[in-house]
Formats: sequence, C-alpha cells, structure tokens
Amino acid sequence: MKKAFAPATVANVACGFDVLGLAIEAPGDIVTAELAEDDTPGTPGKIALEVEGDARLPREPERNTASVAAQTFLDRYAPDASVRLKLEKGLPLASGMGSSAASAVAAVVAVNDLLAVGATLDDLLNCALEGERVASGTAHADNAAACLYGGFVLVRGAAPALDVVRLPVPKGLSVALVRPHLELSTRDSRTLLGNEVRLQNAVTQWGNLGGLVAALFREDWDLMTRSLVDVIAEPIRSSQVPGFADVKRAALETGALGCSLSGSGPAMFALCRNLETAEAVSQVMASAFADTADLETDVHVSPVSKQGARPEVESCAS
Amino acid sequence: MKKAFAPATVANVACGFDVLGLAIEAPGDIVTAELAEDDTPGTPGKIALEVEGDARLPREPERNTASVAAQTFLDRYAPDASVRLKLEKGLPLASGMGSSAASAVAAVVAVNDLLAVGATLDDLLNCALEGERVASGTAHADNAAACLYGGFVLVRGAAPALDVVRLPVPKGLSVALVRPHLELSTRDSRTLLGNEVRLQNAVTQWGNLGGLVAALFREDWDLMTRSLVDVIAEPIRSSQVPGFADVKRAALETGALGCSLSGSGPAMFALCRNLETAEAVSQVMASAFADTADLETDVHVSPVSKQGARPEVESCAS
Repeated sequence: MKKAFAPATVANVACGFDVLGLAIEAPGDIVTAELAEDDTPGTPGKIALEVEGDARLPREPERNTASVAAQTFLDRYAPDASVRLKLEKGLPLASGMGSSAASAVAAVVAVNDLLAVGATLDDLLNCALEGERVASGTAHADNAAACLYGGFVLVRGAAPALDVVRLPVPKGLSVALVRPHLELSTRDSRTLLGNEVRLQNAVTQWGNLGGLVAALFREDWDLMTRSLVDVIAEPIRSSQVPGFADVKRAALETGALGCSLSGSGPAMFALCRNLETAEAVSQVMASAFADTADLETDVHVSPVSKQGARPEVESCAS
Repeated sequence: MKKAFAPATVANVACGFDVLGLAIEAPGDIVTAELAEDDTPGTPGKIALEVEGDARLPREPERNTASVAAQTFLDRYAPDASVRLKLEKGLPLASGMGSSAASAVAAVVAVNDLLAVGATLDDLLNCALEGERVASGTAHADNAAACLYGGFVLVRGAAPALDVVRLPVPKGLSVALVRPHLELSTRDSRTLLGNEVRLQNAVTQWGNLGGLVAALFREDWDLMTRSLVDVIAEPIRSSQVPGFADVKRAALETGALGCSLSGSGPAMFALCRNLETAEAVSQVMASAFADTADLETDVHVSPVSKQGARPEVESCAS
C-alpha cells in the first residue's frame, strides 16, 4: 500500500493566465493505492475507487479525476495491474485552489510508487492531465504541473509536448491564500472570458509575464510588484467574487507584492516577501471578505513550497 | 561638437511583440551636434537640422525623428540652448531595423553629451520616443530601448512610466540580419494586425515569452529554440515578405535557434549560438531570398551587442 500527498496550488498568478502555477505546503489531497487482491472487486487492468469527502464528488471511477488519472497510468505503464484507490479529499471543490489537479496528481504519484514503474515527472503529468480533462473539460497544466513539480512553474506550451519550465523561488517568497465560502466552476469562468482579447491587453500581459520571470531570477521585489498585474482574466472574473476590490486593496496596503484570483477563484492569493507579511496579509484579506461581503473564509499561509506531490510514509495503523 | 552613434536593432524577437528588442553592433546612424553660433541660423531654444542620406527623409526639423527627439530634450533640460544637428543616415528606411529609433537615440545622446546635462538613460529614452512618435504614429519603446541601452531588453510596460528590464545575453548569442530590398511601413504593418487576437494565441505567446526570458537567464539553448516562436504577428505580416517561409526554413536548417521578421520587416533576423553559425545562416538566408523571391539583400552579422548608442570620439578633421 502506498500513499501520496498533493498540495493546493495557485494557477495564473496574476500575469500568467494558463501558464503559471505555484505550490503551497498544505492543505492537499491524499490518495492511497493498493493492489487489488483476487477476492476484492476490480477487473484486471482496472481501477477501483473509494472516496472520503464532499458528497458531490463523483464516486464512479470513470468520472473522478483521481481514478481517471490512475487508469491512464495503468493503461500506459501497467496494463495488467488492478489497483484500489482511496481518495481523502482535503481540498474544497471549485475553489480555485487546484483541487482536481491535486486528486489527479496524488493518484498517479501513489500508483507509480505502488507499482514501482519509475515513470518520469513528465509521464506522470501527462496522466494527471487526463484526470484534469474530466474535471474541467480541457486539460490545462498550470495547476497539475505546479502540484507535481512543486515550486513556481511556467508551462511554456503543451504541443507537441508539454514543456514545463521550473522557475527560481526567491528566498522568503510566501503566499496568503484566502478562500471565501462560495463556489465557482472553472468551466463557467472560462466561458466568461470569451475567445478574443485586445492585442493591447495581450501585449501588457506578456510584458508583465516577462517582467515576473526576470524578477524571480533576479530576486527583484520591486519588479515583481510591478509585474503582478492581470489585465486579461481578473477584470472579468473578479466581478464574480463579492468583496474582491476591497480584499485586494487590503492585501496591497498590508505589504503584499501582488494579489489576484487564485486560478479562476473564488479563492484569492497574495504573494509576499516573507511568511510574516503573508500572515498579516491573510488576516486583512479575511477581514475584508467578512466586512465587505459578509463571507466566511478559510485562510492558508505558506512559503512557496519547493516540494510538490510526494509519497507519504505509511502510518503505523495502515 | 559631439558625435553619437546608434546601432540597428531587432524588435519583437519572435515571441515579444512590442516588448522585446536587441541591439547589434553595426550598422547605425550617426548624429553630430554643435552649439549654434550667433551668425548661424537657429532660434534660441531651437534645433537646426542637416541630413545626409535618403532623399525621402524629412528635412524639416519638426518632422525628422532626430530633431524632434533633440528638441524634446532641449525643451526639458536646456530650453535656452540652440543646437545644430547633422544626421548621417546609415540605416535604410522602413526596413525593420529600427531606423527611426536609431536617429532619435543618436540625436539625444549627442545633445546630452554636447550640453553635459547628464540626463539618465530613462530620460533620454523618453525624449527619443517623441521622435519615434513622429515616425510611426505611436511610441513603442522596443527599438529605442534596445538601441539606447544595448543588449537584450524587455519593455515591461509604458505606463505610468517606461519600465525597461535589461535581460542577460548568453555568451556567444549572435544575430544574422538580412534585409531584402523592399520597403514596408510600420504603420501599415500595424493596421494589418487588427486590434484583437485569439486568447489561445495570446496564451501561447506569453508562454513563449516567459520561456525565452528564462532561457536567457539559464543559457538554455534548447528552451530558447522552443520559445522563439511568434503566433501573433508573423503569421499575418510574413505574407508581405516574398520568400519568407523559404528563408526561415533555410536559417533553421543551418542551425539558427529561431528566425522571424525583424520588427515589422521586411528584414529578417535569426538568432544563433555563435558568430560562426550566424555567418553561415546569413548566407543561406540571402541565397533563399535571391533564389525564391529574386530579391537582393544586405547582410549583417553581429553578436548581440552589449553596448548600445554611444558618443563617438571626434575625428581629426572635425
């Protein structure tokens, strides 16, 4: 039996719509994988699934991101194995915290560990994305890549092959992640954006993305601050999150380098120079959600985690 | 009397439409500046202009990029001085080689040197851009910033202030710049692009821009190669350049990291790992223009020049 943990992630990171992602330390999803014995349910080459958590999560293996990702892995690397998965769902659904990616990534890491296939991170990522495809309709790798690799990643492109560029993480760089208790579907948020953008806005966005990448290499906090601006998704999607403007203002006034939606929201993230600032920023963000939109929140504070998903040491009870 | 040289530049650099530029060593424009004496024409606080080169260049000081840039400089930093400029035009017009930027930059560098104002590079850039505005209708800083600063630059943004990020130049990085003998106007090329782009293409472009910036920091030639792709301007503008596809293919087959239009063309550039490759690439590009489009070319080969515009030591005759 093998167990893997996969953390929450922040995708887009203001200026990097669909290409940037970063991992935090916790919370996350846990998947346990074990070989199906002869006397347990499970067809050879198939995944059986047990889910602990939100009742709305699909229990059918062909609809759950974790089992779809694991099934893709079996099909490619171990077609004769039968595996039982247990998903312990630590992340909230439709939160903008990379919940579906975490389930898919934890599943492939656990199964890879169980079967000792030794697949590469790129192999695992490709399998995890098949799980993501079930959840969001399209397979964007920004959450899954950050979740699997850890740290700060740029998904340069997806064709002909996924091209994940690991970016440097300046010492101290920390995240305040605040999730208001409301749900948005990534699919709906994507429709909201439409298929076209103004060229002028696109130029602004890629100028900022280039600035952010340079800032990470140079540990240039001022350039990072100037670059953490989203003129593509935030102006449209933020209207779905009550209190957005006030929460963002509070974060910036408290010393955040930048603040925007985490993925497609409703969670909001702020990047900060150190953990202490991130702590303070998370508190003013939570207060602003409460005061201006009467929303309760979950608050997470973490360094940008250099470690992504990983096998967990089994507990004594298992 | 002071003289300044400003080099040709490659703007856009495939994936960085309107935000990336790089300088080469030569050719370039030369501007000589001297104080107007009492017995020479020139109103106090005004620029007088003499132009050597293409007969189509505006001779009226209020229409030439060099004199407009210099006049802006006087208005801001030395309103009582009267200056005579001589522009020796070394760069061809409407070539995609940053010709108007070079004239403007050489002018402000010469005048700054003449009047010993000690303006910063950012001050000079802002004045030069007023000259650019006369030439192209809008003031894009990608050519002018590369021309003035040298090296490889990212113009992250222009508002509220110009934000020029100097990028690292990997050792050996060289340019083949091949100009076919035909002219395109930047203004027309810009109209061709329209005001909207597909979001999917914009995402591809900023993924590539992020990849290129990371590749410059890491000296990662493979990532540079994968990133030097333009899905925004090249697919539209390249149709204006006969032979484009064959020239590009020849460059890539001969070892270029990437090849695209220089600025809005018709000049084409190829980036190469070293000067020897750039030499070979420039020859096959010139041959392809001749063979497939019956076009004569000028060929320039140079390292990416860390030095931009600079005061020139006066010759003995002056």
